[in-house]
Amino acid sequence: MRVRNKPWAEPLIKAHPELIITDPIQMKGNWQKRFDQNQPIHIEIGMGKGQFIFNMARKYPQINFIGVEIQRSVAAIALKKVLTDKLSNLQLVLADGGDLNEYFAKGEIDQIYLNFSDPWPKSRHEKRRLTYKTFLTGYQEILKKHGNIALKTDNQGFFEYSLMSMNNFGLVFDAVYLDLHHSDAASENVETEYEHKFSEKGQRIYKLECHF
Amino acid sequence: MRVRNKPWAEPLIKAHPELIITDPIQMKGNWQKRFDQNQPIHIEIGMGKGQFIFNMARKYPQINFIGVEIQRSVAAIALKKVLTDKLSNLQLVLADGGDLNEYFAKGEIDQIYLNFSDPWPKSRHEKRRLTYKTFLTGYQEILKKHGNIALKTDNQGFFEYSLMSMNNFGLVFDAVYLDLHHSDAASENVETEYEHKFSEKGQRIYKLECHF
Repeated sequence: MRVRNKPWAEPLIKAHPELIITDPIQMKGNWQKRFDQNQPIHIEIGMGKGQFIFNMARKYPQINFIGVEIQRSVAAIALKKVLTDKLSNLQLVLADGGDLNEYFAKGEIDQIYLNFSDPWPKSRHEKRRLTYKTFLTGYQEILKKHGNIALKTDNQGFFEYSLMSMNNFGLVFDAVYLDLHHSDAASENVETEYEHKFSEKGQRIYKLECHF
Repeated sequence: MRVRNKPWAEPLIKAHPELIITDPIQMKGNWQKRFDQNQPIHIEIGMGKGQFIFNMARKYPQINFIGVEIQRSVAAIALKKVLTDKLSNLQLVLADGGDLNEYFAKGEIDQIYLNFSDPWPKSRHEKRRLTYKTFLTGYQEILKKHGNIALKTDNQGFFEYSLMSMNNFGLVFDAVYLDLHHSDAASENVETEYEHKFSEKGQRIYKLECHF
């Protein structure tokens, strides 16, 4: 997600170190200290404007959530949302989701959410897709044994690729939805901003739940 | 596929033992003897009226094909088609696809096609689905090491189920198509009668290629 540069983003982020971290390496292995309760940690890679992770944190107080976003102006929009209704189980990180292993320790995380990741449709960009095997290796490292990944996308090609790549890696599928919004799981689904917009236009949303 | 009983079916089948076998157990381990050339054997479980297996046999003379169908009247329609253009690399079998292991020996087959199998949508009928684990165990036995399965369906629920079941069994995915007729593989695709009818109505066709 690209948004215009927002001059207020940097000062706002700097003013709220209790909610958003810009130097996450310092927390490696100690993320529980950022939360009131010691409980399972779920992370979203590429939280965008934060609607999903914010609503998940509201819905599941028994879980600690961390939203990771690389773009400052986008992360600042998420931060604004969090400021309206502070939740003790939600933390934000301004960092590259591709560098997870630099700031999360082995087995520190229980669940990873990959929502509407960039599909990188060209073959020569395969290695940039967040379900390419090098990323899967990284996820496996920071996840607890048998840790979960939940992936949603509206991009058919990216979903086909991810089914292949995650199967080939040895991930075990727990649920596959080829039309999430018309499935039994629709009522439980927490939407991202992007998902809401595109599903309203009749676009199919795909979802895979799997574990290592 | 259900068709009305055809009184001409039984005499026609009896008249052509060189093309269709009704007692396949006798051939177990010796299927190559039914063909002119000793070459890889591909089977279709539930060939219906035979359009797919017949056109595959025409397209790939370097492969021996066997179409299996349990319904006499349907198999007889396939036989009629074969009689119009006899192919030395095509054999038919009137038998229950669920009993494959009784009439194919270990490692005798190179590839299995599952086309538009009955989806058995009710949970209590899961064990009847041709991608249920007991069937997969059977396929693994008759297939050569790393033998292939190609599955096509227009049934979303059955495809979701099959992706799960085949992944959980440990099958390795080689290709996933969530809209086969609008994919790169469309031009190479050989259709079944059913597939042709439903894809013309705009129904999506799903395909999975995988191996043990």
